[in-house]
Amino acid sequence: MAAIKVHGTPLSTATQRILACLYEKETDFQIVPVNMAAGEHKSDNFLALNPFGQVPAFEDGDLKLFESRAVTHYIAHEYADKGTQLLISGSNKETAVLELWKEVEAHQFNYPASTVVWEVFYKPIFGMATDAAVVEENETKLGKVLDVYETRLTQSKYLASDNFTLADLYHLPNMQCLLATPAKKLIESRPHVSAWVKEITARPAWAKVLAMQKQ
Amino acid sequence: MAAIKVHGTPLSTATQRILACLYEKETDFQIVPVNMAAGEHKSDNFLALNPFGQVPAFEDGDLKLFESRAVTHYIAHEYADKGTQLLISGSNKETAVLELWKEVEAHQFNYPASTVVWEVFYKPIFGMATDAAVVEENETKLGKVLDVYETRLTQSKYLASDNFTLADLYHLPNMQCLLATPAKKLIESRPHVSAWVKEITARPAWAKVLAMQKQ
Repeated sequence: MAAIKVHGTPLSTATQRILACLYEKETDFQIVPVNMAAGEHKSDNFLALNPFGQVPAFEDGDLKLFESRAVTHYIAHEYADKGTQLLISGSNKETAVLELWKEVEAHQFNYPASTVVWEVFYKPIFGMATDAAVVEENETKLGKVLDVYETRLTQSKYLASDNFTLADLYHLPNMQCLLATPAKKLIESRPHVSAWVKEITARPAWAKVLAMQKQ
Repeated sequence: MAAIKVHGTPLSTATQRILACLYEKETDFQIVPVNMAAGEHKSDNFLALNPFGQVPAFEDGDLKLFESRAVTHYIAHEYADKGTQLLISGSNKETAVLELWKEVEAHQFNYPASTVVWEVFYKPIFGMATDAAVVEENETKLGKVLDVYETRLTQSKYLASDNFTLADLYHLPNMQCLLATPAKKLIESRPHVSAWVKEITARPAWAKVLAMQKQ
C-alpha cells in the first residue's frame, strides 16, 4: 500500500493540482475517494484531516496536510530527486523568482480565474444559473492578469524560468476548465499565453489526471 | 544608502507586511514613497518594478521583486541569521506545517478578511458607502475560518508552531484593521484567537510599522 494517500476526487481542481504534481514526480500514491454529494467532506473523519471540510486532504506516512499548494510544495521538496524538477535551485535571489510567480498565481490569477470557472464551467453542470455580471467583471480582471503573463512569457518559456515549475503547474486546473468555455478567448487572443497553456496542458502527467477524471 | 528599497506606503496592508518582516529581521532598508493619489503606481517607472501596478515593489541590490508574501519569504531566507527566526527548520515533514498555515492565510483567511477590511475600514476613509450584504457574507465566512484557528491555537501558541513565524506575520495588516472596526467582535468572541491577535499585534516590530503609519 502506497504511503501517500490523496483524499479527494479528480473532479476537484485542488485535488487535480496534487495529482498533477504526483504524476510529475512519478511517485506512487493511492486516491481515497471522497463522496462530496453524500457530504463525506463534512464528516468527522474527514474534518480530522482537513478542518475546513474541503477536498483534498493528503497523507504521507504520519504527515497529514491540506491546502493543495502546501501539499505540492512538500512533494516537490521531499521527492526532489524523482521525476520532473519542479523547483528552482540556487541562491535565495535565484529561487525568489519561483516564489514570486507562485504568489502571482495565488493573489492575481486564482480569484478571477476560479470565479469565472465556477460561473461558466461548474454552475451549468450543477444546473445553476451563470451570473453574467460576475463573469464580465472577472473576465476583465483576468484579462489584465494575462496581459502581464503575455509580456512575461516573452522573457522566459515558463512563468518562473525556462523550465516547468510549480508556478506553472498551479495554473493547470483552472486553465483546463477555461479552455472548455467561451472564456478560452482570453487565452487564445494572447499568443504567448496561448502557446504556454498549450504546452503545459499537453504534459503527459496532466494527461494522466485528465484520464483519471474520465474514469 | 541601504541595499533594500521598499517602494510603497505604510498605509497599504501589503506594504505593511514587508515592513513588519524587515523590522523583525532588524535589517536596514529605505522606503521609497509611492504617491498613489497621484497615480504613481501606474507610471512606467513603477510598472517596471511591478507590472500589476500595485504597491509594494521591492529591491535588494539587483534583485527586483513584488507580491508581499514572496518578498517576505525571500527576506526570511536571505537574512535567516538576523533578528527573529520566522521560519521552521528541520525535515521537509517538519517545515510542511509552515507552508500549510501560509497557504491557509492566502486561500482561507485573506479574501474574506480583506473584503471586510475594504468595506468597513477603507471605504469610509475614501467617503464610499459600505455594502452591508457583502460585509455580512464575508463576516460569516471569516467567522468559520476563525473557528478553525480557535481550535488550532489550543494546539500551538502560534499558527504553525510555538514560535512566531511568517504564517502569523502575514495576518497582521488585516487583523490590525479589523480591530479598529465592529468586525473585531469576530476576534474577541474567540478566546484563543483573541489572545493570539493581542500577542502578535503587540510585537515591537509591528509597533514600528504602526508608528511609521502615523508619521
